[in-house]
Amino acid sequence: MSTLILDKNAVRRLLGMPEVLSAVEEAFRLHAEGKAAMPPKAYLTVERGDFRAMPAALPGCAGIKWVSVHPGNLSRNLPSVMAVIIYNDRETGYPLAVMEATIITAYRTGASAAIAAKYLARKNSRTLGLIGAGYQAHTQLMAHAGIFDLEKVNVFDISAEAVSNLIKAFPDLPLRRSSIEEAAASDIVCTLTPSRRPIVKREWILPGTHVNAVGADAAGKEELDPAVLKAATVVVDDLKQAASGGEINVPVAQGIYSPDEVYGTLPEIVAGKRRGRADERQITVFDSTGIAIEDIAVAKLIYERARAQGGYPQVELV
Amino acid sequence: MSTLILDKNAVRRLLGMPEVLSAVEEAFRLHAEGKAAMPPKAYLTVERGDFRAMPAALPGCAGIKWVSVHPGNLSRNLPSVMAVIIYNDRETGYPLAVMEATIITAYRTGASAAIAAKYLARKNSRTLGLIGAGYQAHTQLMAHAGIFDLEKVNVFDISAEAVSNLIKAFPDLPLRRSSIEEAAASDIVCTLTPSRRPIVKREWILPGTHVNAVGADAAGKEELDPAVLKAATVVVDDLKQAASGGEINVPVAQGIYSPDEVYGTLPEIVAGKRRGRADERQITVFDSTGIAIEDIAVAKLIYERARAQGGYPQVELV
Repeated sequence: MSTLILDKNAVRRLLGMPEVLSAVEEAFRLHAEGKAAMPPKAYLTVERGDFRAMPAALPGCAGIKWVSVHPGNLSRNLPSVMAVIIYNDRETGYPLAVMEATIITAYRTGASAAIAAKYLARKNSRTLGLIGAGYQAHTQLMAHAGIFDLEKVNVFDISAEAVSNLIKAFPDLPLRRSSIEEAAASDIVCTLTPSRRPIVKREWILPGTHVNAVGADAAGKEELDPAVLKAATVVVDDLKQAASGGEINVPVAQGIYSPDEVYGTLPEIVAGKRRGRADERQITVFDSTGIAIEDIAVAKLIYERARAQGGYPQVELV
Repeated sequence: MSTLILDKNAVRRLLGMPEVLSAVEEAFRLHAEGKAAMPPKAYLTVERGDFRAMPAALPGCAGIKWVSVHPGNLSRNLPSVMAVIIYNDRETGYPLAVMEATIITAYRTGASAAIAAKYLARKNSRTLGLIGAGYQAHTQLMAHAGIFDLEKVNVFDISAEAVSNLIKAFPDLPLRRSSIEEAAASDIVCTLTPSRRPIVKREWILPGTHVNAVGADAAGKEELDPAVLKAATVVVDDLKQAASGGEINVPVAQGIYSPDEVYGTLPEIVAGKRRGRADERQITVFDSTGIAIEDIAVAKLIYERARAQGGYPQVELV
């Protein structure tokens, strides 16, 4: 027995968004059917940031993502978020692989939002609005382009350079620089910022819009005017995480919004336990916080592809 | 930046019990002084076993041990317990190393029991009793021999072969095969079995004995007659873990023993917040369950030694 070591270059080479979309959708279905196991995230807090342990099991596999979040790293020319997955055989516990997981996180986050849009956005959605043009915008774009036939992608960022870089990175997609209002007036809107105050106004969101609220990932962060949540059908990936650190966390803490108002979870909708969009004028919001089954599902994909292709380094780790 | 990959052979080469004893003792002191961080273990339960996430931070470092416990593995010729540590820079979160941790676990468990004996056993202790002669007996022996001048080591196991193998492995130490009663009548007694019923009787334990109760590591396991606990000053590594899965767990569940009867924690004693042995006739028991700061302290030792020596494989993991 041996353990595959898959570094960032290997993971990048082995990842493809179409397969990630299928793997994450299937993980949601299994989760809603009670075939996954996922204890709550465990937090280890230190002076300059924190570490999060995200264990999960799916049929045939198990593992843990260990993520560090150190916001001050940018001044040291290091990413603020770094993640590693230990991927195990569920039957024996054997550690089959250790792999870079920052890229996996970006892909699965993009995929889960696009899967939310698949079930919640209007079927004829043709315009995508990206608010925030950082690294997460790349995978959001790839994922949505894998499901929707996009005619226009409106990109807003406070950094003009970030917008230009995104447009250059996808020469075959119909990207254009836009105002935040134009981006918010798209059929599908993805908010991808680290904002701590609402930046998307209620009046900008048209009837029938689907919003993926992705940026808020900790207590105190929010991107949407709470009136958007009040007007919308809100779907979460995990209710407890959403209430404590997702888009709804600030309005919940302020008593403006109650977790009881949440319609349901994306896994429930994927598994057919709840219906998706009800009509053409409904506003829908997916509050994405990220759950460990998404990571382990993608790790499984990468592991199996690496084994099938061969040639990746392996060690007798244990 | 790069991540060191330290497999089982590297870890075995880099580990020395004297340094492990110092590192674990220092970790206990830091913990009692509030300089460590250690959220509770997270459990991921699957059909054939479970996985445990054990995060911890010490000054300058942080990390997580991810352990699988799959009792049925022995029939597949695989260890039942396998562990991996991701070792991080506390300041930036960077994953500095990924290392095998089953051997680390054995070493730190031996060290923590010997440190307990250092503070709780009689200073003139000369005989060691090992009840159970499996792999853990090796590291218990190494650790106690690093602190005490042993004149006799009484070894009992239901497997005569295990006893022979242990004796052969330590030709320079005064090991002898003994009955369980003789082993229990030693100055320091280590119980190292997977027993689920008491195997050490109250009347075998002499006044002044120190017992390291190491085997019980899950609900339902116990090795000592509860009357030993009632007669003894009981010290734990972590009270919550001890009450739910350590030596005291069964008597606590049966209402025979209360967690309130526990004298204190080993970290408190090491830090001088509580005194150790009071007199020559006191019976003391250390209920060892294993805590993550022990693992991360040893990981730090290994990492620093590997970096200093050089020549170990490294990858651009993240």
